[in-house]
Amino acid sequence: MPKISQKGLAMPQSPIRKLVPFAENAKKKGANVIHLNIGQPDIKTPQIALDAVKNNQLNVLEYSRTEGSEAYREKVAAYYQKNKISVTADDIIVTTGGSEALAFAMGSIADADDEIIIPEPFYANYNGFATASGVKVVPVVSKLENNFALPPIEDFEKLITPRTKAILICNPGNPTGYLYSEEEIRKLAKIVLKHDLFLIADEVYREFVYDDKEHYSILQEPSLEQHGIIVDSVSKRYSMCGARIGFLVSKNKEVISTAIKFAQARLSPPTYAQIASEAALETPQNYFDEVKTEYVARRNLLISELEKLDGVKVAKPQGAFYCIAELPIEDADDFAQWLLEDFRVNNETVMVAPAAGFYATEGLGRNQIRIAYVLDQASLKRAVHILGEALKTYIC
Amino acid sequence: MPKISQKGLAMPQSPIRKLVPFAENAKKKGANVIHLNIGQPDIKTPQIALDAVKNNQLNVLEYSRTEGSEAYREKVAAYYQKNKISVTADDIIVTTGGSEALAFAMGSIADADDEIIIPEPFYANYNGFATASGVKVVPVVSKLENNFALPPIEDFEKLITPRTKAILICNPGNPTGYLYSEEEIRKLAKIVLKHDLFLIADEVYREFVYDDKEHYSILQEPSLEQHGIIVDSVSKRYSMCGARIGFLVSKNKEVISTAIKFAQARLSPPTYAQIASEAALETPQNYFDEVKTEYVARRNLLISELEKLDGVKVAKPQGAFYCIAELPIEDADDFAQWLLEDFRVNNETVMVAPAAGFYATEGLGRNQIRIAYVLDQASLKRAVHILGEALKTYIC
Ligand SMILES: Cc1ncc(COP(=O)(O)O)c(C=O)c1O
Ligand SMILES: Cc1ncc(COP(=O)(O)O)c(C=O)c1O
Repeated sequence: MPKISQKGLAMPQSPIRKLVPFAENAKKKGANVIHLNIGQPDIKTPQIALDAVKNNQLNVLEYSRTEGSEAYREKVAAYYQKNKISVTADDIIVTTGGSEALAFAMGSIADADDEIIIPEPFYANYNGFATASGVKVVPVVSKLENNFALPPIEDFEKLITPRTKAILICNPGNPTGYLYSEEEIRKLAKIVLKHDLFLIADEVYREFVYDDKEHYSILQEPSLEQHGIIVDSVSKRYSMCGARIGFLVSKNKEVISTAIKFAQARLSPPTYAQIASEAALETPQNYFDEVKTEYVARRNLLISELEKLDGVKVAKPQGAFYCIAELPIEDADDFAQWLLEDFRVNNETVMVAPAAGFYATEGLGRNQIRIAYVLDQASLKRAVHILGEALKTYIC
Repeated sequence: MPKISQKGLAMPQSPIRKLVPFAENAKKKGANVIHLNIGQPDIKTPQIALDAVKNNQLNVLEYSRTEGSEAYREKVAAYYQKNKISVTADDIIVTTGGSEALAFAMGSIADADDEIIIPEPFYANYNGFATASGVKVVPVVSKLENNFALPPIEDFEKLITPRTKAILICNPGNPTGYLYSEEEIRKLAKIVLKHDLFLIADEVYREFVYDDKEHYSILQEPSLEQHGIIVDSVSKRYSMCGARIGFLVSKNKEVISTAIKFAQARLSPPTYAQIASEAALETPQNYFDEVKTEYVARRNLLISELEKLDGVKVAKPQGAFYCIAELPIEDADDFAQWLLEDFRVNNETVMVAPAAGFYATEGLGRNQIRIAYVLDQASLKRAVHILGEALKTYIC
């Protein structure tokens, strides 16, 4: 039989996927599974976006322009300008989700065996895209004790080699919920300028920032003009993950013209999704206000309930809709599987994401889980109660 | 300034893209440009597919399953079974266009510096996907004189090295229009079995087969069960290129489980597009009959008109909707640009795709162009007339 590629073998499984059969089994046996494991919000997509697709008048569903239609990119540029990020349509490529923007960014700046430094824990699929293109992820540890703040500059500098091409951050962070301050972005700017690296910022959660904090984008930092690449997405912003529209944004012309070549190979981003996304730009402000209020309430409830549990430590997220919790156990993989297989409260259990899959350093995060607070508050409350009861039983 | 990757620099421009500014300029100056250069059909998308999207009842536009919904894959399997390709839902991954299926197929079976043998001329983006993943395209020449039939087996065997991982064919072919016979598929099966290679077949034009010929899929060949990978797409089948839905199909479980890991990294294919594509499976047969009748008429007109031109040689396509024409000139790049810049008949000109971009061997195809017959017959007739007049002027 012909052989699979080495990189195919090396491609990581999604850290959640492994548990899916256990969740399905639990459901088959009649249990209710509360999903804390995935970042699929329950929030309604803006009506204006849904309607635009329902009312579309297409007769031939054609390819769009490779980089997205001119009209749409103009409007996206206006959105960024409103958010103090001064870019034009030419600085934007419409991609098939933020996912594709990540792949294009990596492909445009790094070759096989090149290195990208990423504060861990990080969005697990960074590993997948890196493996797919042969790029080496070099993790720099951020710590729960510090709420996952930017690791000290020295920690970055220790890791920089001639093969280092970029630093990649997620701001606000999945899975940490950490929001980098303006000062932290400046520190990063200093390093990348000094070592002539790119700074890729995954800002897909830009709008999900709480407690009157403000998001500071890498492209608000003037010194990063030629070094900064933003990865963005409509998925979470408008709760339209299934659209598959994202953006690669850079004022570096070489980055854009290179990424466009990758984009040309795959022809175009999805057409219906662009109709929905273009309309979504007209979403009224009260939609976002309500969504934010809801997420803050969920976060507050989740954190305060988790903090009541014996031996559980949790970082307080300032953005996005995830948090990392450290449990008084050794192996979250085993615990998560056991929850699905053997533990029920009133015939209900919870599915969590073991956090080890969000670390690149072997052995880190083994006693941590990631929780996504994308469910209504009643479910969240029941879920934490179940977790608490489960810990009592599991530890004995 | 930080540097672009080597592979970013190596990524090919689409062979059409270079000419786009000249076409835009011609239009700005008021000329009508007849587009023979792109495979975007003018055929209406089936109403049933358009309606399914218009009538969708989604409130939250969610991610779909990574590999496409169970229900949809079941129906796609039934479609294949109807086409004598006996696969099940588990053998199918729904991808974001055939484009992504190509990327997943390459990634799953080849590492950087591995080799894939492809009969040339071939679909230009194979180069892009190969470059993006560091894979080396090894061309084997097929000839216009032979209508671009499968090159002799010896030609393949001469090229096989320890790094050869697969042979990739396009059947029927873009840009050649050639349809491989059952016997030719058997020959390929013999080689790949003997040398333990994969055979990837891009069958996105499966339905576009003329003159009472029948398409013979690689997965109709029982010996290819573990070696065959089909790349497929709804783009041309239902004239819904903008949907961005395709398929990777294989009965080799390792290929599927590996490709799913690549798919997981990008989360899911577009949701609206899956609604349209699932509905499109119910398109009535007369839609396809009418489309085929139209393409046959276009092809017959195009070929007979081209054959009337002095010094023009053309291969007769038996499938897809492209043909390669050899012109009595030296440099089709220059000719195509000149057509857009300097030549008009009644203020009209044509845009063609210089064929060199469809060859990997330097220097081949320089006097050839690819023509897509995706326009109504009146336009095609005018286009060939303009080409004829242009050749007379250009040659002098
Ligand atoms: C941090 C982060 N980046 C990127 C993505 C990719 O999202 P999409 O491809 O849907 O835009 C996600 C999705 O969960 C994410 O959490
Ligand atoms: C031969 C061939 N393969 C694959 C594709 C990719 O098409 P899509 O990604 O739209 O399915 C095309 C598009 O023109 C093609 O001609």
